[in-house]
Amino acid sequence: MATTAQSKAEIIKQKSVKYNLQSWSKQGGLNPIAVEKAEGIYYWDYDGNRYSDMSAQLVNLNLGHGNKEIVEAIKEQADQYCYMGPSFAVESRADLAEMVIGLMPDNFGKVFFTNAGADANENAIKMARMFTGRKKVFSRYRSYHGSTFGAGNLTGEPRRYPLEPGIPGFVKFFDPYLYREQIQFESEQAAAAYYVAKLREQICYEGPDSIAAIVLETITGSNGVIIPPDGYLQGVRKICDEFGIMMICDEVMAGFGRTGKMFAFEHWDIKPDIVTFAKGVTCGYVQLGGVAVSKEIAAYFDDHFLSCGLTYSGHPLACAAGVACVRYYGEHNILENVNKVGKVLGEELEAMKAKHACVGDVRYIGLFAAIELVKDKASREPLVSYGGDPKGVMGKIVGMLKEKRFMTYSHENMVLVCPPLIITEEQIREELAKMDEVLGTVDKEML
Amino acid sequence: MATTAQSKAEIIKQKSVKYNLQSWSKQGGLNPIAVEKAEGIYYWDYDGNRYSDMSAQLVNLNLGHGNKEIVEAIKEQADQYCYMGPSFAVESRADLAEMVIGLMPDNFGKVFFTNAGADANENAIKMARMFTGRKKVFSRYRSYHGSTFGAGNLTGEPRRYPLEPGIPGFVKFFDPYLYREQIQFESEQAAAAYYVAKLREQICYEGPDSIAAIVLETITGSNGVIIPPDGYLQGVRKICDEFGIMMICDEVMAGFGRTGKMFAFEHWDIKPDIVTFAKGVTCGYVQLGGVAVSKEIAAYFDDHFLSCGLTYSGHPLACAAGVACVRYYGEHNILENVNKVGKVLGEELEAMKAKHACVGDVRYIGLFAAIELVKDKASREPLVSYGGDPKGVMGKIVGMLKEKRFMTYSHENMVLVCPPLIITEEQIREELAKMDEVLGTVDKEML
Ligand SMILES: Cc1ncc(COP(=O)(O)O)c(C=O)c1O
Ligand SMILES: Cc1ncc(COP(=O)(O)O)c(C=O)c1O
Repeated sequence: MATTAQSKAEIIKQKSVKYNLQSWSKQGGLNPIAVEKAEGIYYWDYDGNRYSDMSAQLVNLNLGHGNKEIVEAIKEQADQYCYMGPSFAVESRADLAEMVIGLMPDNFGKVFFTNAGADANENAIKMARMFTGRKKVFSRYRSYHGSTFGAGNLTGEPRRYPLEPGIPGFVKFFDPYLYREQIQFESEQAAAAYYVAKLREQICYEGPDSIAAIVLETITGSNGVIIPPDGYLQGVRKICDEFGIMMICDEVMAGFGRTGKMFAFEHWDIKPDIVTFAKGVTCGYVQLGGVAVSKEIAAYFDDHFLSCGLTYSGHPLACAAGVACVRYYGEHNILENVNKVGKVLGEELEAMKAKHACVGDVRYIGLFAAIELVKDKASREPLVSYGGDPKGVMGKIVGMLKEKRFMTYSHENMVLVCPPLIITEEQIREELAKMDEVLGTVDKEML
Repeated sequence: MATTAQSKAEIIKQKSVKYNLQSWSKQGGLNPIAVEKAEGIYYWDYDGNRYSDMSAQLVNLNLGHGNKEIVEAIKEQADQYCYMGPSFAVESRADLAEMVIGLMPDNFGKVFFTNAGADANENAIKMARMFTGRKKVFSRYRSYHGSTFGAGNLTGEPRRYPLEPGIPGFVKFFDPYLYREQIQFESEQAAAAYYVAKLREQICYEGPDSIAAIVLETITGSNGVIIPPDGYLQGVRKICDEFGIMMICDEVMAGFGRTGKMFAFEHWDIKPDIVTFAKGVTCGYVQLGGVAVSKEIAAYFDDHFLSCGLTYSGHPLACAAGVACVRYYGEHNILENVNKVGKVLGEELEAMKAKHACVGDVRYIGLFAAIELVKDKASREPLVSYGGDPKGVMGKIVGMLKEKRFMTYSHENMVLVCPPLIITEEQIREELAKMDEVLGTVDKEML
């Protein structure tokens, strides 16, 4: 039996390596884990090894693996029908749109559904351009918005480079990345005022009347859980109001409970014009993304042609998964757990920062956290330099975690800790103990 | 009971109109059909009205509604797990990749899975650019490749306009659209030679060494089922070989049996370098697309970073649907039915062309067909002009078909006839009789 299972895993792995092209990788020498089953925060390979999913896969599996309600909703929808084109009225599609708008601020009107995060951002900027009649789009250097040409040109980090020379009119600005700022600010408010003023200055240089939208991850995700100082997003909102620019919050990673609120922008009590979402709306059980727009934008398209479309806009099966998933957040008080366990996560991370020479900074909000590794705490020199890690140092650290079955991924000099939102206090302590050990090894051997 | 059902439909419709943004439309005055169930080539509203799906939704539902094998495969996968990230070895993902490569010409190596057609094309051009180290991309005016910035800039028809000013280096060339060509050719071969020579000339002007790829719908779909003359694709292949340009066939609509072969390029016995697919690979039961690449390209990425990625690359549930779907084509001899019923379709369309003043041209291959409507058969003046139909003439014609429960859509001056590939001879005759009546009304009242 063990042999059969093992050879099954081997066959899957061999086929996978032979026939699948793997995202963001060189394909030579890949040795993927073949996964047999998954439940809660864990998954198992065919040899029965259990892994702890401390990144919630790609920070999308907010409710963990094997959620029965979502699985049942998928099966029920599959029995009715899996697919009807976007022009039909479909119960799950209409219900989910209503639910999403119910979660948004009161200025929101309608939802355009997509397959994922990248196409949500693609369609958001298209709509902002149509609505404003303007072309330019602002976004930030430390951002990831997807890998298609539009979303990839919004993206500021190196995953943008293969898409260049870029699309005309896509302009980048700096992030409020306080830990690595040249200036030391006296307060969060002072920092916020500085970044907002610099953004406003740049907008004036670019021509405010030519700018359709400012796109930002409300809280920057894969580029290091960068939490904006209080006053920053409010300031951006004010600039947008001043110049008639659409404020687009990318909540693909931060949305649906990850930060302890349903959406990250709620922490600063602002109302965006457009919100993009994906990941947590279905936890990836079926692929789904979307663009929620203000009532004003929605009304504009009553008598203007909405030049957006995709075969699978509002896929019935995906929307059925979404309805069950969004209902689950509410009915099971997921936010309460995020805040409770998030408190423990924050305390543990602060303890690690105090203890380990390699930990330059820890940033966390809800169950959204990053550990920023440095060669030297005082100089803040990053453990690997921007855009390059030729010796694979970060890969080794993630590999040491993996040996302990603590599964996550790294970006630049940062390790993400973003478990499913259903994790318990006990579980998080157990997992973070592994992180603590690995950081100890980094202190000793890798600085 | 009838009242309850009716009011349920009303609620769904009202919610849908209130909260869903609808693709490619003005939102005011929409009155969508609320669909209760679907089976084979039919679907029903909540009042029990039966509609015949003569476009296979958006030409994706090749196996029709309610295919039990696909539904069972989805449920089974949902019980194992719905999602694992792209870096894991997953049985359905590995199996489907192997099956897709098994259907491709012998020069093919690996598959990169996406969510749909647009992102398949996005990633195809990214890979071609990385592999060749070149930037320019050629595509044709009468084409639709998707609506994201990259795919939308490949697109030649008006759905491209909102994405302009375009991405640098995206170049358009003319299609072999013989029915509307200025020149009358003596033979298919003469036409093919002409278009290939003009393309080669344009490539020389643009600089062959700067061109990464030529992207074409093997048979143009929504822009009017334009079937290339024999010799054309072979000629494009030769140009690509001459200059080291990647030949990318977009088989999103034409692939997976639609034309009577598994892929449309098989009609001309050519081997592309890259094939993009979506729609028919799962029939849309779960969203899936992909990029199949040659062994040479696959090998290149063994030691070069593949800078492509998306959260849902190779979604396990989608791949499980794909495995069941692709297996079904083979086990149920779907191609045989396409060719048998396609013959009837062709005969009936030729009869309509002979009979109706409004029918300028009919084009068909397998179960992929378009009827091109004209004001005048001799002058070939289109029934509506390019890019404009201010009086909604085509909408009225589609509306007349809809009254007879013949459901399809139009593009420019063309009506598509692309039923599910499981349609019977009897069913197609029954449906085309409705078309014949409507065309009679067009002859009498709309020219
Ligand atoms: C903030 C953000 N936006 C957009 C995306 C792109 O989403 P997708 O991979 O579903 O296209 C991601 C993916 O990680 C993301 O983190
Ligand atoms: C030939 C072709 N390519 C690409 C696409 C885009 O596919 P999707 O709508 O799944 O993004 C379509 C959609 O109709 C198509 O017909």
